[in-house]
Amino acid sequence: MIQQLDDAYFMKQAINEAKKAYDAGEVPVGAVVVCQNNVIARAHNQTQLLNDVTAHAEIIAITSASSYLGNKYLNNCSLYVTVEPCIMCAGALFWAKLDKLVYATTDDKAGFSRYGKELLHPKTKVLAGPMEEEAKALMQSFFKSRRVS
Amino acid sequence: MIQQLDDAYFMKQAINEAKKAYDAGEVPVGAVVVCQNNVIARAHNQTQLLNDVTAHAEIIAITSASSYLGNKYLNNCSLYVTVEPCIMCAGALFWAKLDKLVYATTDDKAGFSRYGKELLHPKTKVLAGPMEEEAKALMQSFFKSRRVS
Repeated sequence: MIQQLDDAYFMKQAINEAKKAYDAGEVPVGAVVVCQNNVIARAHNQTQLLNDVTAHAEIIAITSASSYLGNKYLNNCSLYVTVEPCIMCAGALFWAKLDKLVYATTDDKAGFSRYGKELLHPKTKVLAGPMEEEAKALMQSFFKSRRVS
Repeated sequence: MIQQLDDAYFMKQAINEAKKAYDAGEVPVGAVVVCQNNVIARAHNQTQLLNDVTAHAEIIAITSASSYLGNKYLNNCSLYVTVEPCIMCAGALFWAKLDKLVYATTDDKAGFSRYGKELLHPKTKVLAGPMEEEAKALMQSFFKSRRVS
């Protein structure tokens, strides 16, 4: 019997992406797109490397997943991201008609959820919390290292 | 004396971009980024061509302008776009710290302004209306042609 992989498993993959961002001196946010129990796209924040504010993990992951699928809609896909998406990324997920959004830790300053769920597509299911501590610790460590350096 | 080019002049450049989208069967939205009275980036909607919901004119224009400037912030730049930006694009303009946003026609369904100006950066000045009729006519013609075909 094929084991149904769970939210923590896929969020761990997103955390691995966030660690790549951390190691590169980028705000440590990672994302993966999952379709039919397979990871079809992996991305991490690259705004510094690419000199581009739009290069958030979610935007790169959406572009990559659409390219893989040959379809601009992520109807039957889930996006796992280590930090709550911002307004820009929530808007992108709306257009992608994402089926399910899972994020690990909230972003009280820039997160979309201060507007409730209305920035997302009405069909998008939302789950917050898997691996919250790991994602939060990574962000806190990053910003702490920036303050002392 | 060097003539100060006006909003209608730059919006005309954005309309020219929108026409390229129209001719390619894309929703006709065009954008240009202007810095120190020079157009530094031109883009039009390419969501169909690229199979990518993030390929709005504004997102492509931001990426292109940042690449030109070698700076991810568009502090002293204006973005001219033929249709009011959506939530995703307003979020991107927030991160870019855009100085001035000019759009020709409103988008009552998907435009950002139903949230007021708060999705944009507090420093971003907003002007709506230059060449409104031309931009609107292009959108109406596009959607009319889609309905009869």
